[in-house]
Amino acid sequence: MRTSIATVCVSGTLAEKLDAIAAAGFDGIELFETDLVTSPLSPEEVAGRCADLGLTIDLYQPFRDFEGVEPSVLAANLRRADRKFELMHRLGTDRILVCSNVGTATVPYDETAVDQLGRLAELAAEHEVVMAYEALAWGKYVSTYDHAWRIVEQVAHPALGVCLDSFHILSRGSSLDTIADIPGEKIAYAQLADAPRMNLDALSWSRHYRLFPGEGSWDLADFVARMLAAGYTGPLSLEVFNDVFRESDPRVTAVDARRSLVALEDEVARRNGDSALEVLPAPIELGGFSFVELAPGVSDPRGSDGSASETLSEPSSSSDVERMLQALGFTETGSHRRKNVALWQQGDARIVVNHGLEASSAGIAALGFDVRVVREAAARADALQNDVLHRDHRAGEDELLAVRAPDGTEVYFSELSSGTGGGAGRRWTAEFGDGDASVPSAHPLRIDHVALVQPWDRVEEAVLFYRSLLDLTATEFVDVPGASGLVRSRSLVSPAGGIRLALNALPDHARDDSDYPNHIALVTDDLLGLLRRLDGLPLLEVPGNYYDDLDARYGLAPGLLDELRAANVLLDRAGDGEFLHAYTRPVGRVFFELIERRGGYDGYGAANAPVRLAAQRRLTGALPSGTSPAALLPSRTT
Amino acid sequence: MRTSIATVCVSGTLAEKLDAIAAAGFDGIELFETDLVTSPLSPEEVAGRCADLGLTIDLYQPFRDFEGVEPSVLAANLRRADRKFELMHRLGTDRILVCSNVGTATVPYDETAVDQLGRLAELAAEHEVVMAYEALAWGKYVSTYDHAWRIVEQVAHPALGVCLDSFHILSRGSSLDTIADIPGEKIAYAQLADAPRMNLDALSWSRHYRLFPGEGSWDLADFVARMLAAGYTGPLSLEVFNDVFRESDPRVTAVDARRSLVALEDEVARRNGDSALEVLPAPIELGGFSFVELAPGVSDPRGSDGSASETLSEPSSSSDVERMLQALGFTETGSHRRKNVALWQQGDARIVVNHGLEASSAGIAALGFDVRVVREAAARADALQNDVLHRDHRAGEDELLAVRAPDGTEVYFSELSSGTGGGAGRRWTAEFGDGDASVPSAHPLRIDHVALVQPWDRVEEAVLFYRSLLDLTATEFVDVPGASGLVRSRSLVSPAGGIRLALNALPDHARDDSDYPNHIALVTDDLLGLLRRLDGLPLLEVPGNYYDDLDARYGLAPGLLDELRAANVLLDRAGDGEFLHAYTRPVGRVFFELIERRGGYDGYGAANAPVRLAAQRRLTGALPSGTSPAALLPSRTT
Repeated sequence: MRTSIATVCVSGTLAEKLDAIAAAGFDGIELFETDLVTSPLSPEEVAGRCADLGLTIDLYQPFRDFEGVEPSVLAANLRRADRKFELMHRLGTDRILVCSNVGTATVPYDETAVDQLGRLAELAAEHEVVMAYEALAWGKYVSTYDHAWRIVEQVAHPALGVCLDSFHILSRGSSLDTIADIPGEKIAYAQLADAPRMNLDALSWSRHYRLFPGEGSWDLADFVARMLAAGYTGPLSLEVFNDVFRESDPRVTAVDARRSLVALEDEVARRNGDSALEVLPAPIELGGFSFVELAPGVSDPRGSDGSASETLSEPSSSSDVERMLQALGFTETGSHRRKNVALWQQGDARIVVNHGLEASSAGIAALGFDVRVVREAAARADALQNDVLHRDHRAGEDELLAVRAPDGTEVYFSELSSGTGGGAGRRWTAEFGDGDASVPSAHPLRIDHVALVQPWDRVEEAVLFYRSLLDLTATEFVDVPGASGLVRSRSLVSPAGGIRLALNALPDHARDDSDYPNHIALVTDDLLGLLRRLDGLPLLEVPGNYYDDLDARYGLAPGLLDELRAANVLLDRAGDGEFLHAYTRPVGRVFFELIERRGGYDGYGAANAPVRLAAQRRLTGALPSGTSPAALLPSRTT
Repeated sequence: MRTSIATVCVSGTLAEKLDAIAAAGFDGIELFETDLVTSPLSPEEVAGRCADLGLTIDLYQPFRDFEGVEPSVLAANLRRADRKFELMHRLGTDRILVCSNVGTATVPYDETAVDQLGRLAELAAEHEVVMAYEALAWGKYVSTYDHAWRIVEQVAHPALGVCLDSFHILSRGSSLDTIADIPGEKIAYAQLADAPRMNLDALSWSRHYRLFPGEGSWDLADFVARMLAAGYTGPLSLEVFNDVFRESDPRVTAVDARRSLVALEDEVARRNGDSALEVLPAPIELGGFSFVELAPGVSDPRGSDGSASETLSEPSSSSDVERMLQALGFTETGSHRRKNVALWQQGDARIVVNHGLEASSAGIAALGFDVRVVREAAARADALQNDVLHRDHRAGEDELLAVRAPDGTEVYFSELSSGTGGGAGRRWTAEFGDGDASVPSAHPLRIDHVALVQPWDRVEEAVLFYRSLLDLTATEFVDVPGASGLVRSRSLVSPAGGIRLALNALPDHARDDSDYPNHIALVTDDLLGLLRRLDGLPLLEVPGNYYDDLDARYGLAPGLLDELRAANVLLDRAGDGEFLHAYTRPVGRVFFELIERRGGYDGYGAANAPVRLAAQRRLTGALPSGTSPAALLPSRTT
């Protein structure tokens, strides 16, 4: 299907917006009136620019406050419409959005709206313009799409159809069944927006928090499928007002936007079982975490000269992050045959420390996921306009294919080897010597989830990136209070549960990302037993007050409470489930969490996150600085 | 009255919060449970720290989800309460907030709540604890303060009173009349918060947008007056959850918070006509703008050596900002007798250019207001914990007294001279030679308003600063869409209308303040006439599309439309009023607006601000940059 986007979705001047939209591969635009009014480009120049960029102007929008008015107002409104229709000729577009009246309407009767929109349709027809009438969720008398359709049906004029905007319909929780009653040719336009679930008046929700499909909480695929079933043949078009996108790089936003439509169209086809309409290779079926790659940071004594050092196996020469892995019970099971990369394992958890990475502090560089066929994964990533990275590999080595996530993390796909007898072996581990030589452990670990801090302007994009590429499902955001602001956290889970990611959005004015390290959560069957064996593991200290409160809340057996307290282990409960967890102190920009899930506990212990954030904050020091007036002021010497 | 503040109001660790709160002069705190739970300080250590800082712990808070539960849950709740009462002994506090149940309540009957709270009161009495029962606006069965009072009245136990929280009461629009029915000794605690008017569910509104009194939209003075009338004798205490304050410097927030209570207490006393209770010198009665001071910026050829240059009167040596003043029809009417400061006048508008100020670019450094008695103004500023600046002055010169506003702007007060015969003369102008020698002008100007960009973390504080110091009234915030995000704008007006200020909050991630210069709006009776005389004034160019839209909207007479278009003048209408305005191009971080108000138009032409923001944006260039993943990533060489 053709893809279109309202110019209001991205930041910049109109010229900058058009460039970004075209570069992202859209077929057309909705031209937002304010973007034209504030532009020095004449309508003819805008038309020319769009033509040069291969963009059509699919809709001029919006025309407001027309119908349901007194006769004296109607005359002025028709005059205003006449001017806009003339303008549309100059722009070379023949379709206009007419929103239901929110301001000037004084006559509540449908007959008046029908009569007045009928007169407008006559005028539109003279100008060869088609109008798409849209019920705004906060329209004064017309606020539902079925009401708008009843009016359009009564006007019964070829120049008038409805505009179906997913936001206005889904924000009201309207039934979608009426869509089937609308003949396809009377759906003059369709606008798509997703949104997070919020308890907010529809106007504020709409103006500040709309999202691209797949980034919010709604089922846009169902919405689109119903429109297609009704016979809609226009473009899939985005109209998203979002405060963050308004402040972001329009070139990034436009690609994110287009990706949302491609993924949506593909989802609609798959759900309908219509393989002819699929526009993407199949979603990637994930096993579990194949590995997590760490950069050791500048404290790494092995340097970054790319050559393996002969001191590799000397504990005294290992990096901070490797000393932490040792303390966690990991063993270095191999080093890459030609790169300065070490493989560390404990149970089914594999951590790769890449001494060839230059980073000022230790941190997560890449995630590796087990997939069935790497090339299929790469094909889908590529079709979704993701940044596919072909990494250096040699004959006999596993093909290294990665995709860059919006926060810069590289996502690798690796195939399980078949026919080696072992079954679950990974081909890439063979490059590290003996292959997947897991070391026996009394308390084997597995990577449960990885939590990644996201830049303020890439959070929504990251959600769509992982959902569209990997077919993960997302929870709603939860707010976690930290000492320097609220952290918004959203988790994503693969269908079989093997992959869990937590994406954390920092407070808007977070001073320094290093206050909010990323982390790797390792799961065990017996956390307290494991910790008894890991003597000397540097855990984050949990305040005594926490255990007093835990006791007040849960009334734990005294022995258990003492044991938790002595081991710096936190506890959360949900239903019959229980979650035990402990955090290591950070190493650079990463720390580890050791967890145990009991009785089907499916969360992440968010209730305890403030304890962790406060403890980490005490380690890093300084107060939120705020803006000093002195920095803004001329310096006064007299 | 004693002043108190909940620890949740400010950012930081508990220790940092206590330091900031004590430094701001508070008498006590409400100790927020999460702050204690996440702190490594034991309860005894917290008590000791508070004592050392001169702070009492007025309230421990909150205790949640107690009443209206099944008997089995009640037992656990009583046990939990018992532990908290023991904790309170360790803290040395005897008062606890009990919130109405939002989660676990299953029994909707008042009798159950009365019975269960009665049992809790018995337990509290054993521990010598007093409970303040508060109806949360989103409580499951108890959500209004009069309902909470009916329950407390039935329990009739000395250990149980109500807590009145202005947020929960005013957010629901409850009548305040019931307050008079509550005996003062049964108001066990009072929590104060202001808030902006929003259409938001009460929970989100409460958790993210509360403000200190005087920063929002509510009449807190009336609320407090009613509690005092009922006999409340506890502290005035703040409980404000605000996302921005959570991210700001706690030392700044705490002073802002305390200022809000002092101003509030004073307002209550004045409104009651009870001069004995006034805690501040009287609010400052403002005339109009005495002057605006500009820093010329580094391009200033006269340097910043502090000495008047002999080239002062040479036009070729004047700064960019002075060339702009000349183009606006201003005349340099004098230079300061011993400082390198020039006075420029046009009609009643006075602009002081201070060549002694060091600034990288031209900008507004200070505002001067006409007042009756300067020393009174300084006394009120000082009592409000403002930063009062005593500037260098000599015998025979006007006393220079200024207060630093939160954004760094200095606010000067100047007295009108009496007895000089002229009446409206200003003493300070005598230091510039001939005194207030206004130059005759066919189109005399006056300063109408000044618009100041505020740092993200000082906006609410700035509103309170101006309101409490100068007795200005504030409008609600309006959002103005710019090319790089939404600008939130709020205006403040003095009672007689002589002073108008517009405070603009930038998008959260605004790349560079210089994209959003401050401005000085100068009002004339005949804007088009004035502009005809000001040949060569560099105005911001208004796009032709704007005039096409103006024509469509208003159907102006063709002659007028052409004239507006030729002169780059914008038009706004409200009711019968009309607003004509034009913007100069920026000079450094400042520009001028020329305006004409017709027929009682009282606004600022906000509808046209997007045109200005887009034009300014085109002048400054680059796209919003966003976060580049490369900046976050380890650099990969293999």
